[in-house]
Amino acid sequence: MKGIRQLAEHLDISIGTVSRALNGKPDVNEETRKRVLEAAKSLGYVANQSGRALRKGSTGIIGFMMQTGPEITGHGDTFFMSVFDGVQAVFARHKLDLVALLCSSEEDPLDYLKRVVARGFADGIILSSTRRHDPRLELLARRKIPFITLGRSLTDVGQPWIDLDFEGIAQASIERLVERGHRHIAVTRPHDDTNLGYIFVDRCRDVLTRHGLTLANEHIFRSLPNERGGYQIARELLACEERPTAILLVNEMLATGLYRGLSEAGMVPGRDIAVIGRQSPHSHFLSPRLTAYGLKHRDLGVALAETLLATMPGYAAAYAQRPARVLWPMTLEPGESDGNGPADRRN
Amino acid sequence: MKGIRQLAEHLDISIGTVSRALNGKPDVNEETRKRVLEAAKSLGYVANQSGRALRKGSTGIIGFMMQTGPEITGHGDTFFMSVFDGVQAVFARHKLDLVALLCSSEEDPLDYLKRVVARGFADGIILSSTRRHDPRLELLARRKIPFITLGRSLTDVGQPWIDLDFEGIAQASIERLVERGHRHIAVTRPHDDTNLGYIFVDRCRDVLTRHGLTLANEHIFRSLPNERGGYQIARELLACEERPTAILLVNEMLATGLYRGLSEAGMVPGRDIAVIGRQSPHSHFLSPRLTAYGLKHRDLGVALAETLLATMPGYAAAYAQRPARVLWPMTLEPGESDGNGPADRRN
Repeated sequence: MKGIRQLAEHLDISIGTVSRALNGKPDVNEETRKRVLEAAKSLGYVANQSGRALRKGSTGIIGFMMQTGPEITGHGDTFFMSVFDGVQAVFARHKLDLVALLCSSEEDPLDYLKRVVARGFADGIILSSTRRHDPRLELLARRKIPFITLGRSLTDVGQPWIDLDFEGIAQASIERLVERGHRHIAVTRPHDDTNLGYIFVDRCRDVLTRHGLTLANEHIFRSLPNERGGYQIARELLACEERPTAILLVNEMLATGLYRGLSEAGMVPGRDIAVIGRQSPHSHFLSPRLTAYGLKHRDLGVALAETLLATMPGYAAAYAQRPARVLWPMTLEPGESDGNGPADRRN
Repeated sequence: MKGIRQLAEHLDISIGTVSRALNGKPDVNEETRKRVLEAAKSLGYVANQSGRALRKGSTGIIGFMMQTGPEITGHGDTFFMSVFDGVQAVFARHKLDLVALLCSSEEDPLDYLKRVVARGFADGIILSSTRRHDPRLELLARRKIPFITLGRSLTDVGQPWIDLDFEGIAQASIERLVERGHRHIAVTRPHDDTNLGYIFVDRCRDVLTRHGLTLANEHIFRSLPNERGGYQIARELLACEERPTAILLVNEMLATGLYRGLSEAGMVPGRDIAVIGRQSPHSHFLSPRLTAYGLKHRDLGVALAETLLATMPGYAAAYAQRPARVLWPMTLEPGESDGNGPADRRN
C-alpha cells in the first residue's frame, strides 16, 4: 500500500499537487492529473485514509479492548464473540466498523491502551475486564476519547458503564441454596484483580451473614477462567477441611472442568453437591444439566454500542434515552445440578 | 478526542501554526505556543495519529480478518483466539499491534474488506476463511497491501499462505477406518463455500475409491460450525438409508452436539459408530474420549505472522527463510471414539 508521499516521490512532484490531482481540483493541468492517476493505480495508492481521518477528525472505527492469552481466550471464552454480534448490528446502521483490540495477557493493559490512543485510529472505545482500580479510565477521560466500560471499577471518571448483575446472582443463588438447607457454600472468583470478583464475593458474604452463616476463607476459590480452572477447583474443594455442600461459579468456563474433577471422585452434581453456574454454549451439553444464569449477549452488545454512541457527537441524538449506567440482568434457568439440599437427604 | 483542526478552530489560528507549535518548530512565538499547548491539553488533543501515519506511510497495525456471527463465533469457535496469541508474540517484537477485523456474517466479505482498505489503518492483513473463489485476494493484490491467507483458494494471486493439512487428515482417517473394516464412512463439510470443504471431501472420496469404496451423497453432511450443527448431523445420520458405521468431523465444534444426538438414540461413539474429529478445549471433556486431530495453534499464529512479515519492507530480512506456502500438519491423538470396526463385531 502506497501513501501520497510515496506517490509524490515517485512522480517527483509536490504532495500538494498530487493531492489536488487526486481530489479533482481544477488547478491541476490535465496531463499531470493523468500521470498522477496512472501512478496511483500502478503503485496501489489507497485513496485514503489517514489524511481524510485527519481532516474529518474521525476514522469510523470503534475499538473493543479485550484481553487475550492462552489461559483466557485460548480456552474457549466465547463471551465476547457473542457480544460483538450485537455491537456490530448497531454500528452497521452508521457505517462504523468494530475492531477487537487484542491486549496480550503478558502486556500491561494501560501501556497497551496508551499505544492504541497514540495510534489514534479509533473514534471510540469499549473497555472490558475492568479492574478494581483501573487507570485506563483516567487515560481515556484525560484524552477526551468517548468510551464505555463493560464492568465497573472503584476508579470512576463519570463514564457510562454496563455491568452484569453479579450482586443479583449472588443474592438469588445464596437465598436459593440456604433455603434448601445448605450451610457450607463455596464461591469462586477470578484469579486476578477484576472488579467483579469483589462485587460477587462481598454480596455472597453479606447474604450469608444475614442468615447467620459465614463464608469460610477456604471456601473462596480463585481460578483462571477455563476448564482447567474448574478442574482445579474440584480438587481444592475435595481437600477442604469442612467440605462445602454447594458451590457458586462466577465464570461460565468452569463448569466442564468442575464436573470432570467431581466425577473422578465419584461425585455427581445435584446429588452429592449443589452447583450453580453460568450458561455457555457448552453448559447445555453437560449431564446432569447445569442450573445456570443466562443472559442475552447480543442485546448486551446492542446496549453497549448504543450507550457509547449516546456520548459521541454526531450520534448522540438518536440514543439520548439510553441510561448511562445499567446493571444487566441475568436469568436463572434451573437444571439438575443444584438438586436437593443436604437437608432433604437428612430427612 | 480532538484533532488538529478542532484545535485550530478553537484557537482561531491556522492549522499550520498549530502544527508547528505542537511540533516545537522555532518559527512560532512563545505566547502562541503556550496557548496551543494549553488548549491541546484542555481539549484532549491526541498527538497524533493519522497525520503521522500519513507521513510515515505506516500505522503499526496488522489486521486479522475473521467472520463473526451468532452461528459461528457465538457458539464457541475458539480457534482464532488461540492463533492470535502466537501472532501477537511475533508482532510484539516489532511494536506492531494486532487488531481483529470482525466481518459480520451478514455482510459480504469483499465489501467489508474494501471498506477496511479505504480506511487504510492496517499495514498488513491476515485473511481467514478463504472461499473456493475469493475476490478478496485480488483486491489486496491490486492495492499492493501485504497479506497472507490462512487457507487456500482457487483464486491465486501468488500470495503466501498457510493451510491446515486437510488432505492429510482425510487420507490418514479413511485409511485407519477402512483398515478396521468400515465400508460406509460419512464425512462432514462446512455449510458454505469455504475452500477446505472441497479439499477435504475430494481427498476422502479419492482414498475410498482407491479401496474400491464409494462416498455416498447421503453420507456427506453439510453443517454450521457449532454444537447444533453436530446435533443435526446425528439426526441426519440416523435417518440415512444405509447407516454409516463411521464418521469424520472436519470441524472441531461438532463433536459435542454429535455425541448428544447419538446418545439420545442410545448410540455410543466407539461402540456403535466410529467417530474421528478435531481437538478443541471441550473435546477433552467428552466421554468416551474423542479420537481427534490436534494442532499447535500458537505455533500456527507465529508462522502466520512471520510469513506475513517476510513480505513486508522493513521486516523481510529477519524472516527471509520462512517458506511462503505451508501445509500445516495435524496430529492424531487416539481416544476411544473410533473403537473397534464393524468387522470386529462380526467376528
